[in-house]
Amino acid sequence: MSLSILVTGGAGYIGSHTVLQLLLGGYKVVVVDSLENSSQISLERVREFAQDHAPKLSFHQFDLRDRPALEKLFASEEFDAVIHFAGLKAVGESVQKPLMYYDNNIIGLIALLEAMAAHGCKKLVFSSSATVYGWPKVVPCNEESPICALNPYGSTKLFGEEMCRDVYKSDSTWKIILLRYFNPVGAHPSGAIGDDPRGIPNNLMPFVQQVAVGRRPALTIYGTDYGTKDGTGVRDYIHVVDLADGHIAALNKLSDPSFGCKVYNLGTGKGTSVLEMVAAFEKASGMKIPLVMAGRRPGDAEVVYASTERAERELNWKAKYGIDEMCRDQWNWASKNPYGYEPCVSTD
Amino acid sequence: MSLSILVTGGAGYIGSHTVLQLLLGGYKVVVVDSLENSSQISLERVREFAQDHAPKLSFHQFDLRDRPALEKLFASEEFDAVIHFAGLKAVGESVQKPLMYYDNNIIGLIALLEAMAAHGCKKLVFSSSATVYGWPKVVPCNEESPICALNPYGSTKLFGEEMCRDVYKSDSTWKIILLRYFNPVGAHPSGAIGDDPRGIPNNLMPFVQQVAVGRRPALTIYGTDYGTKDGTGVRDYIHVVDLADGHIAALNKLSDPSFGCKVYNLGTGKGTSVLEMVAAFEKASGMKIPLVMAGRRPGDAEVVYASTERAERELNWKAKYGIDEMCRDQWNWASKNPYGYEPCVSTD
Repeated sequence: MSLSILVTGGAGYIGSHTVLQLLLGGYKVVVVDSLENSSQISLERVREFAQDHAPKLSFHQFDLRDRPALEKLFASEEFDAVIHFAGLKAVGESVQKPLMYYDNNIIGLIALLEAMAAHGCKKLVFSSSATVYGWPKVVPCNEESPICALNPYGSTKLFGEEMCRDVYKSDSTWKIILLRYFNPVGAHPSGAIGDDPRGIPNNLMPFVQQVAVGRRPALTIYGTDYGTKDGTGVRDYIHVVDLADGHIAALNKLSDPSFGCKVYNLGTGKGTSVLEMVAAFEKASGMKIPLVMAGRRPGDAEVVYASTERAERELNWKAKYGIDEMCRDQWNWASKNPYGYEPCVSTD
Repeated sequence: MSLSILVTGGAGYIGSHTVLQLLLGGYKVVVVDSLENSSQISLERVREFAQDHAPKLSFHQFDLRDRPALEKLFASEEFDAVIHFAGLKAVGESVQKPLMYYDNNIIGLIALLEAMAAHGCKKLVFSSSATVYGWPKVVPCNEESPICALNPYGSTKLFGEEMCRDVYKSDSTWKIILLRYFNPVGAHPSGAIGDDPRGIPNNLMPFVQQVAVGRRPALTIYGTDYGTKDGTGVRDYIHVVDLADGHIAALNKLSDPSFGCKVYNLGTGKGTSVLEMVAAFEKASGMKIPLVMAGRRPGDAEVVYASTERAERELNWKAKYGIDEMCRDQWNWASKNPYGYEPCVSTD
């Protein structure tokens, strides 16, 4: 009998890759996604790739804040665990529209936790972010490093973690893993699914990819005077398939009867500068990426990378891929899908 | 033309005292209260005492999370400002039922902020709490002291403050005052309105009062070995009428065109121990309060009192009453209303 996993935001970037790994791993997967910021085509591609496992995937389109829809779902199916990806994730937008972020991310999480509690489903994997380390004083960041929020997006992650911890403290029959993702990049090696952000990309690699396929003229690099090897910011890029596998490892951990509530970093433990990443992408794609050098963006940290020790030791998980594979798969996805999932959508 | 103020939670303890001061000050007041944790009788008493001003008070019973009701209210009336008291406030209960606290306090605030934004009402006084100072390393606590949350109730205040700050940062036409209350006690000198908590009181003075009127056998004092003059915890008790007046001062400040978003402590600046407070109450009431000495409660700080400098300087407000008046008015309320507002309510 396969375990049944509810995946919120399962049509999104990390979500769709995790859904695929779950199906291939034999899980039954129920996706809830509003499709506000994602495409259902990602799930069609997942079904194609999953082949015999495809019938184990079902999809419901609604927003988690729609309590009657959420209640109906929990009343009709039993879930062994929930992986909660759903939420808005653009830092800059969150500064402009904080209430939209609090409404989506915080109310969505409260609604989900309440539905889970009401139906006795008490195993959760929550998508947090390395953003909670802010501008770290010490790297690598380990799970005990100080945390803070530099913007409303970060606050929704910080508050979300805290709410999860409080729920566990009030009822120790919950089992909750808070995963702090570092910088997910790349795509499934098939090139069938990948990152397809709406509007101007907020993150480095989707932007690089859009320059490579001719959708944007040049990449702007924010900050060239940091105290790093080449002056550009250093981050811990992690292949999205490694990240997806980290969720399978987390689910396994949740079946440990003595487990409670704990944070794990999902990163590679290696810092890579913006210029190093661009060079790796140029090598993988054979394309030249025109660069525009610009000043620092407020709130951007200099160097952030993960201590991976706890995840390696306790989740028995370790990232397999390096930046060459990340860039190879990013380019494979980009060259096969230069305009993402819905190239023919007209805005007229 | 009088200014129109929306007061959420206006039937509650601090709310009802503030509504009375607003009416006496010539404001038009619209109260929204779910009555989940308060009694409408408080508003009847306010009306009686406000006499000629009473017609300026109107009341709507609904929960702020009821968005259609909130939208209907904002669509039908214009408000010059909002004072947001509504929320749950029992620390111990919040540890047991964190989701209830996040749902009520956080979703209520988000709904309110969104309704205000949608209708162009951008002046807010938010009820925060000295609880955000946690166990302070330095006293008096000033508004720049480090803040933290020791329980879900405290988190709802910390997160609420942060959400308000983010809203202001996204749109500087907002004017927001975050008031950190210290320990409100006492009652209106008339004895017509006062604190009437449901169930076992969470705070010192309502408990003392219930012992005095014979509803409970003895007062339990948690912690007698603190490093204070008599070993019991020290707090900054403030007369609820002073606190109410602090809200009028905050409203005045919001009419300053150059004002933005700022935190103010509302306290007296004086620390009083539990035993000193009990002695003052015994003197005021002529009653003997039997004591039971018990161990410390986890999360209770040793000494907390306010720096009142910023409120004095910028709000032109200073607490007038000392602990003798607080205890006199507490006892006046208690002796006239030994069972609170609804003594005849049967639970059969």
